[in-house]
Amino acid sequence: MMADDSSGYACPIPTSDYQQILLAHGGGGRLTHSLLEGLFLPIFGSPELASRHDGAVVDISHNRLVMTTDAYVVHPLVFPGGDIGTLAINGTVNDLAMCGARPLYLSAAFIIEEGFPVASLETIVRSMRRAADDAQVRVITGDTKVVDRGHGHGLFITTAGIGVVEHDLLISPAAVAPGDVILLSGDVGRHGIAIMAAREGLAFETTIESDCCPLSDPVLRMLEAGIDIHCLRDLTRGGLATSLVEIAETSRLRIAIDESAIPVRDDVRGACEILGFEPIYIANEGRFVAFVPERQADQALALLRRSPVSADACRIGRVTAAASGLVTMKSLIGSERIVDMLSGEQLPRIC
Amino acid sequence: MMADDSSGYACPIPTSDYQQILLAHGGGGRLTHSLLEGLFLPIFGSPELASRHDGAVVDISHNRLVMTTDAYVVHPLVFPGGDIGTLAINGTVNDLAMCGARPLYLSAAFIIEEGFPVASLETIVRSMRRAADDAQVRVITGDTKVVDRGHGHGLFITTAGIGVVEHDLLISPAAVAPGDVILLSGDVGRHGIAIMAAREGLAFETTIESDCCPLSDPVLRMLEAGIDIHCLRDLTRGGLATSLVEIAETSRLRIAIDESAIPVRDDVRGACEILGFEPIYIANEGRFVAFVPERQADQALALLRRSPVSADACRIGRVTAAASGLVTMKSLIGSERIVDMLSGEQLPRIC
Repeated sequence: MMADDSSGYACPIPTSDYQQILLAHGGGGRLTHSLLEGLFLPIFGSPELASRHDGAVVDISHNRLVMTTDAYVVHPLVFPGGDIGTLAINGTVNDLAMCGARPLYLSAAFIIEEGFPVASLETIVRSMRRAADDAQVRVITGDTKVVDRGHGHGLFITTAGIGVVEHDLLISPAAVAPGDVILLSGDVGRHGIAIMAAREGLAFETTIESDCCPLSDPVLRMLEAGIDIHCLRDLTRGGLATSLVEIAETSRLRIAIDESAIPVRDDVRGACEILGFEPIYIANEGRFVAFVPERQADQALALLRRSPVSADACRIGRVTAAASGLVTMKSLIGSERIVDMLSGEQLPRIC
Repeated sequence: MMADDSSGYACPIPTSDYQQILLAHGGGGRLTHSLLEGLFLPIFGSPELASRHDGAVVDISHNRLVMTTDAYVVHPLVFPGGDIGTLAINGTVNDLAMCGARPLYLSAAFIIEEGFPVASLETIVRSMRRAADDAQVRVITGDTKVVDRGHGHGLFITTAGIGVVEHDLLISPAAVAPGDVILLSGDVGRHGIAIMAAREGLAFETTIESDCCPLSDPVLRMLEAGIDIHCLRDLTRGGLATSLVEIAETSRLRIAIDESAIPVRDDVRGACEILGFEPIYIANEGRFVAFVPERQADQALALLRRSPVSADACRIGRVTAAASGLVTMKSLIGSERIVDMLSGEQLPRIC
């Protein structure tokens, strides 16, 4: 599946020499160098990486920096709508965006299981390059380790990212205030269902593709327009519900959302019904909530809808004062219930 | 072995609730939160981590930043002189130091195999905190993923680091010049032999401890004294030999070293003879070479010797012009030979 790469990049690595990753590819010697020079450097193409030092030096003209990291262990490595490479770039870009930062530079560390096909690695690294270009970031430094067969699972990727803060806002659960309006950037539940279908071999009428995408564009649009964003959160592990509960608990405020306002595609809703899941607990990789003051909510919504990745943004609820942090949801049939975090593990290795 | 932690930190996690890591500890829900709040936040103790956002915001007053990353897959997780946590901090601190940067902030991403003992995780995270304190850096952001049993190997840690450049030097293989003197910070070969002995159950007369330590202090001493450092390189995978060949090839100069000047402890030399290894190819985690101009070599050496981690620093060779990059070594018996990179894999998963 992964050898069928139609990305249009020229293939720089003499893959005929080695079809599979050997332990020595992680040993720091000749084979590590051939992987670096034959695959990573030409595909990522960033001058900092090409300097081949232990780290990358960059110039930064802002004093407030954001740093973030995520390990990616998604299984399977390739799924409808993306692969572990897409995820490793977008996930970290999105963490930076959720801090209100402009994502700039990423590092990438690969833990590869001995025997992993070099062609698959190349396809995934190409996905990373495309995703980095889309998100306007550069991979500037990296590392490769190889673990012996049976002690890994194909490929794990850890990316870290740095971004700059170009505004004076405090974007944090602590800045959420009573009266804030909660905007959701689009439909929920697709990434988790796409992974589950790919892993379990479930076939639905339509192929459900992951929502994996970079979220910096809509965030930067709001910031540039002067929206006084109070909090941003991407809806990854634990989904919309867990994210909102975290914010309610940290801010000690009540969040009330309206189930009928939350977009869920029919195929995702159908899959959830079959599998016994609620869409608000399903992981997404290209969805976020923004907490904004009521007076700017319509403007913020219009800005979100101008960005392709949040064209279906909508208002799903609001914040009120409370004795303690709490999320409530008005259900489709009109009753109100308390929403808790995801407890236990719904679907491991979603990201 | 790892439960016997005498670090002196109070134990904040109710480990009685869970003795082993469950998949749900990586699921983003309640258990992930309990791990974060019960273990990572109290042990690392950095305010940025405690803000519990997707990333950490920091103020930086310098325009030149260095970013680096390394994945740590060392096996066994604990070895004489350190553990994977010590290594994950020092390795990344050292990569920043080798770029001539003052290390400031680290991220840490954990890939944990289901069933891993929580007590072992705690011991390792405490090692990280101690190593971070020693190196004067802070872990400001992180991530935890759990993979199902049989698809990992206990624990992998990936750290990324950022540091600031407080000088105008270009420290790089490209800055190496004919006439440069090569200083080595201490004896070589201990880390690799310590890991090998721990893994294979080899017993030597003495316990050989890893040299794992932070190298920022000696580097910053030289920079603060105005040493015109041309290049720095820590001697990790592939050892002294591979590092020098990399630098010779990149700079297209000839590096001539003197085997008799390279400190190797007797027990390390003995172990190498038994195992058929050469000390110059063995990985170190607390050793580096500095390329400095002849006129400042004695001053640089004196500065290095003032730092406890490089008290045994010495001059091992020099750089001359050449038609192409090459490393030669005058052997103990007086003959001269060409030194190549490590080819193949000597000992996998050393770091």
